[in-house]
Amino acid sequence: MRKEKLEELHHLIEELKTVNKERLFEPCSFLKSEVYQCYLNNGQMIKREKIIKGEKEGSAVIILPVIEDDKVILIVEPRVFSKRTVGIGLPAGYIEKKEPSYGAAVRELEEEIGYMPKRLISLGGFYQDMGCSSAYNECFLALDCYKAGNQHLDEGEYIKYFNCYYDEALELINMGYIEGCNAIITLERAKKYMKVRNKK
Amino acid sequence: MRKEKLEELHHLIEELKTVNKERLFEPCSFLKSEVYQCYLNNGQMIKREKIIKGEKEGSAVIILPVIEDDKVILIVEPRVFSKRTVGIGLPAGYIEKKEPSYGAAVRELEEEIGYMPKRLISLGGFYQDMGCSSAYNECFLALDCYKAGNQHLDEGEYIKYFNCYYDEALELINMGYIEGCNAIITLERAKKYMKVRNKK
Repeated sequence: MRKEKLEELHHLIEELKTVNKERLFEPCSFLKSEVYQCYLNNGQMIKREKIIKGEKEGSAVIILPVIEDDKVILIVEPRVFSKRTVGIGLPAGYIEKKEPSYGAAVRELEEEIGYMPKRLISLGGFYQDMGCSSAYNECFLALDCYKAGNQHLDEGEYIKYFNCYYDEALELINMGYIEGCNAIITLERAKKYMKVRNKK
Repeated sequence: MRKEKLEELHHLIEELKTVNKERLFEPCSFLKSEVYQCYLNNGQMIKREKIIKGEKEGSAVIILPVIEDDKVILIVEPRVFSKRTVGIGLPAGYIEKKEPSYGAAVRELEEEIGYMPKRLISLGGFYQDMGCSSAYNECFLALDCYKAGNQHLDEGEYIKYFNCYYDEALELINMGYIEGCNAIITLERAKKYMKVRNKK
């Protein structure tokens, strides 16, 4: 990892870290849960509880944007419940009702970093929390991305982004900076499509 | 993947699949959620909601058990909210309060499949749902596992297990059988420790 890139990253982390946190005793407006009684083929009955996010299943898309020189764009955002209180990862977001996942990927890319891709390759999906959720996340590789405008962030969203080489992004996993399963799986699955530069 | 192994897997899936499911309108006893107001270093205030599982953060351990001939043990269990309604993956479970993660890994291995390891190697951790949870899952490679007793399952737990070669487990990811991030990341991270057999 280049020293100047790590410094850039540290500045963004510093800016977005949580300095204070307090619990509010009010009902959640986003997270809900439901109880199901399930009958198995073996004759047994089990009860299971399911997480609902904003009235939806909570399925998300995760996008690895590739720009010129085979660089990728990573984002930095508040992740208030993690140790660092800041997450380093990839553009991602929940799929809207009836929205195709490809459409969600393009939309999130444009909203979160203001980039558009020329090609979008599916890297498959995975369940994020199979025991308690039906959320199925889909990974995409967005090739030949170009700057198309500004970020369009929702209220309460504070997302910064920076670029680095793909192998530096993999390094950030090993260094403990990239810690979320969404970014880890997507970066890993992109391996077969990505060139690794010759380090000088 | 050997044909007889795939047949064995299909039998277990058939046995554990959900044939009927009904929603109960009662409060959840396991899933809870909390609201936090967070002050960022950039001067902004954001609200975030956090998933709580059984009064805890929901951090889990995932274990890849290796037995003789470099075979691994996979488990099959009801995952009622997934498409197949059955999950194929690795022994795993929530870390108890004040329990060290190594201890949780040995305990879950013994409870879920009745095996004990001779060596336990940490494969690092990851956040499962960084935006809504502080759950940090830790992956382990359990080497030289031996049968030490029977399963000790909790009420309502129905876990079957079977063994296959490590490369067959990786194949099951590509074939869409292994779909949960826990097993995917753990199997992937074990690569540098595992021999791949010479296929005949």
